[in-house]
Amino acid sequence: MDIVRVVDELVCTRRVPGLGQASLRVVRSAQGALSVATDPVGVPVGRWVFATTGSAARLAMPDTTCMTDLTICGIIDHWDEGDGASPAAADEHRAPGKASGASKG
Amino acid sequence: MDIVRVVDELVCTRRVPGLGQASLRVVRSAQGALSVATDPVGVPVGRWVFATTGSAARLAMPDTTCMTDLTICGIIDHWDEGDGASPAAADEHRAPGKASGASKG
Amino acid sequence: MDIVRVVDELVCTRRVPGLGQASLRVVRSAQGALSVATDPVGVPVGRWVFATTGSAARLAMPDTTCMTDLTICGIIDHWDEGDGASPAAADEHRAPGKASGASKG
Amino acid sequence: MDIVRVVDELVCTRRVPGLGQASLRVVRSAQGALSVATDPVGVPVGRWVFATTGSAARLAMPDTTCMTDLTICGIIDHWDEGDGASPAAADEHRAPGKASGASKG
Amino acid sequence: MDIVRVVDELVCTRRVPGLGQASLRVVRSAQGALSVATDPVGVPVGRWVFATTGSAARLAMPDTTCMTDLTICGIIDHWDEGDGASPAAADEHRAPGKASGASKG
Repeated sequence: MDIVRVVDELVCTRRVPGLGQASLRVVRSAQGALSVATDPVGVPVGRWVFATTGSAARLAMPDTTCMTDLTICGIIDHWDEGDGASPAAADEHRAPGKASGASKG
Repeated sequence: MDIVRVVDELVCTRRVPGLGQASLRVVRSAQGALSVATDPVGVPVGRWVFATTGSAARLAMPDTTCMTDLTICGIIDHWDEGDGASPAAADEHRAPGKASGASKG
Repeated sequence: MDIVRVVDELVCTRRVPGLGQASLRVVRSAQGALSVATDPVGVPVGRWVFATTGSAARLAMPDTTCMTDLTICGIIDHWDEGDGASPAAADEHRAPGKASGASKG
Repeated sequence: MDIVRVVDELVCTRRVPGLGQASLRVVRSAQGALSVATDPVGVPVGRWVFATTGSAARLAMPDTTCMTDLTICGIIDHWDEGDGASPAAADEHRAPGKASGASKG
Repeated sequence: MDIVRVVDELVCTRRVPGLGQASLRVVRSAQGALSVATDPVGVPVGRWVFATTGSAARLAMPDTTCMTDLTICGIIDHWDEGDGASPAAADEHRAPGKASGASKG
């Protein structure tokens, strides 16, 4: 599952019928890429979440026929891109000598 | 779902039969990558849309056996790459100190 | 669907049985990545085509059990990477002020 | 299947019901990208594993209806990013003259 | 299908049961990314192959319930990254004026 941050709601008046009542959110990855995800959890803007992709995204919706390919699955309790609390930063502390070119956006 | 902009219609005389009557559009991502999407909505050139990928792209078509892997799902009401109205730019205003290497194409 | 160019046929003597009689082509994306696609259309080398991925690639084959994940769907009538006839270039002419970092390979 | 390293457990109090009792891990690829994977094997933090994606990720779970798109399949016995024991490094030793621009993150 | 080179076998003592008797190989793309593929063909280390992804990877296995997402489909007869025998290089010879920024890793 992808780790992304909710940055906004999506306003979309003209859409295909198959999306139904799904709540749509704009999410941004650590690399800055923006996507649209369906949100069955109800996530406030600014929180880091993880989202499932592909056919599993439909299974994560209350209505499994919803035509989504990205669904928010849960809110990560503690995630802070940029300080030592993130797993990536902690890992770099544990094994600094092995970070051969790994780049964390 | 991916956020892309419709840049042109696709002219394609010689094609496989399974695409049927589907309207084909050339879309471009924020990073500049071009793809071809089926369009059940009827989107004017220049508008930003979001499109679903994979097997969900077939479910978004009126004919769910259409052999597409990218279908336009809806027109985004307000989206302006490059000024403060986009969710990405607004988010950067809220948390400027955390944008560690995020690059928005 | 992806926009790629046919650059060669693929010679492959030793293969799994499930590919059957499928014609195999080497295709190259605008970014230079090479892939192998099944070709039910019969495309000459050098032409730009669009190809469908994932499970839709099987539906685009005459034999839908063919184990492909990339199938050529149609030949694009006019596509010229590098001059003003491509949709990307035309779009850049229409909105030059908004091309913030978009890179077309 | 992707080759990734387990860097942490994921704490997630608020989640969709479909994930059930699945153990969640934060994994990092050689390029530094972080993802969340379900873990039916029980992997200690710091080990290199390979993980399957897409619909196959569900088949790798004890409960095949789990809405995951990334599941750890096994622990790699010997994998050391950065010294000669990795397959990539060994391969570079065998054919140094052909490494035309290949970059290993 | 992806074009990759077999660089090693994968030693994996602790794994999920669903992989069964499948032979596992470490493969490397032209861009240097390493992955794990199932190998029903029996490919010697060092050969260039093409591999199918996603749900098609299961269909390419003798046991189609194998939880793989990448399966080697065939050995490419002639493929030499770095000299004129590769399709990419040949194509560059045919149309040098159109290679606008295409980068072959």
